Amino acid sequence: MRLATRGNGTPDGELVVVSADGARCLSPGEQCLNLLAAIERWRDAEPVLRTLSERLERGEGELLDAAALRAPLPRTWQWLDGSAFQTHADLMQVAFGHEPLPTDKPLMYQGLSDRFYGPRDDVPFRSESDDIDFEGEFAVIVDAVPMGTRAADAFDHIELVVQINDWSLRALAVPEMNTGFGWIQAKPACSMAPFASTPDELGDAWRDGRVCLDLLIDWNGERFGNANGCEMGFGFHELIAHAAATRDLAAGTIVGSGTVANADYARVGSSCIAERRAIEIIAAGEAKTAFMRFGDTVRMEARSAGGPAPFGMISQAVIEHTS
Amino acid sequence: MRLATRGNGTPDGELVVVSADGARCLSPGEQCLNLLAAIERWRDAEPVLRTLSERLERGEGELLDAAALRAPLPRTWQWLDGSAFQTHADLMQVAFGHEPLPTDKPLMYQGLSDRFYGPRDDVPFRSESDDIDFEGEFAVIVDAVPMGTRAADAFDHIELVVQINDWSLRALAVPEMNTGFGWIQAKPACSMAPFASTPDELGDAWRDGRVCLDLLIDWNGERFGNANGCEMGFGFHELIAHAAATRDLAAGTIVGSGTVANADYARVGSSCIAERRAIEIIAAGEAKTAFMRFGDTVRMEARSAGGPAPFGMISQAVIEHTS
Repeated sequence: MRLATRGNGTPDGELVVVSADGARCLSPGEQCLNLLAAIERWRDAEPVLRTLSERLERGEGELLDAAALRAPLPRTWQWLDGSAFQTHADLMQVAFGHEPLPTDKPLMYQGLSDRFYGPRDDVPFRSESDDIDFEGEFAVIVDAVPMGTRAADAFDHIELVVQINDWSLRALAVPEMNTGFGWIQAKPACSMAPFASTPDELGDAWRDGRVCLDLLIDWNGERFGNANGCEMGFGFHELIAHAAATRDLAAGTIVGSGTVANADYARVGSSCIAERRAIEIIAAGEAKTAFMRFGDTVRMEARSAGGPAPFGMISQAVIEHTS
Repeated sequence: MRLATRGNGTPDGELVVVSADGARCLSPGEQCLNLLAAIERWRDAEPVLRTLSERLERGEGELLDAAALRAPLPRTWQWLDGSAFQTHADLMQVAFGHEPLPTDKPLMYQGLSDRFYGPRDDVPFRSESDDIDFEGEFAVIVDAVPMGTRAADAFDHIELVVQINDWSLRALAVPEMNTGFGWIQAKPACSMAPFASTPDELGDAWRDGRVCLDLLIDWNGERFGNANGCEMGFGFHELIAHAAATRDLAAGTIVGSGTVANADYARVGSSCIAERRAIEIIAAGEAKTAFMRFGDTVRMEARSAGGPAPFGMISQAVIEHTS
């Protein structure tokens, strides 16, 4: 089952169920006004939505206007982003020049969750000199997870899988990291691909709490990376257990994988510019690739070889913020 | 004007306006269902609430049942906590044994905002060995703050002031700080005193974006500290500008001062146990005071000398979490 959110003038938008080919949709109407409300009472909402999904597969539904789609969750209560790909962590250590980070527990920060940009929104930043970077990643949306939930039990709380562009301002990242307090200025709002998929919709690509799909990334129309999500050092179930160790997770919490990266980066490229710069530093002693300029575009789409794109596509431009 | 939230079986509770003596209240009913909804359209909501406040001062209203009060904002979209008291930063450096942190910009982390405990709620933790600590502080609630708002303009966005206990698990704090990613496990949900006050309600105690009141803290019935909020190195307007440098702040965002601490700690004591332990280390080479045990209580109340307590009182016990 795939879900999306149409703009309707409200902060949370209107929830619709989308056909497997992404062409048609049906609205649950009053029964589930928006995805945040649905995930907060998922046990009741899911059967309603599954019924609509079955009707869509019988050919019912209206045409879906892709241009009207927002992030599946335009805002939610919590965004906890991991950094679960060891290759990414290793390369960022080169890019940022810091000491190796501990690896016994997942790395995770709390980011802003009051806004997720839609898949085609222009994204405003104050200055190119902040070193604007994209980060392609996967994430899961959970229902309410009680404090102390173990990893093996966390699978049952993963209701939806999404694809995210975690915008980062690299010039601000290292000074904030050096405080130990995590990132505020270096991590503005993220973007989200248009469709939230249930894990079963991913078929064999959902394995051991990992999204085993290639994440195709194009920067200004050129292929930049196609790393696969299978190489997470911790699965999403383990990230959830880490996050829930000392807190209940509110329904609607989004838990992210961190930037998708593979050990064979020479072949598959990268999912963020900072990684490519680190690879250049390793190869030639210095970074050559500059960060993004206003007007640059990025496209991100996860696919199995020749298969469908279960999350649809992020395709957006970076623009200058004007107050 | 003082606002509070009564439990009514909904996640956000019911907003009420409270009399200056804290004894009576009036509900705006359908006009402002809860505080989060009110702060999201504050320009319309404030006059409605001010009218009720005037009626309360003429003696109208029903008796307020203090036992029914939750946090003024039981959940919100964003919680950004500063560490603006230099004395606290200096002592935590001793307690945690890390290098001095940069002081040119405010220190700030993003914490969980999907739950704030009420002023009398028992607060569950998984283990005493996590080193349970309280942190007494002040915070402000803002309406929508556009990206790039300057400190001088940020005053206009400060609509309410609140008092917070920022629960901390010290044994988990240093390892998380060492990742640079900030705190997840070390920072469970905070508690909030019952009344949110408009800045004008604080009178002379609201000065230069600071809450110049003594924060009286009792641990197990003994006075632990009465530091004053006036010594913030950055005012709340500056913390807001820091937070809004690269992001819009959603209406309802709470920005915290960090633990209230004064240079004259020998006289006024501390607002968290970790600070007292640092003072012991400085004085005698080792910490003597242990962290909290299950069953321990903490009370926190901000007062001017002989004056009222504009935020009411936090009075709660630490209990063992049972799943």
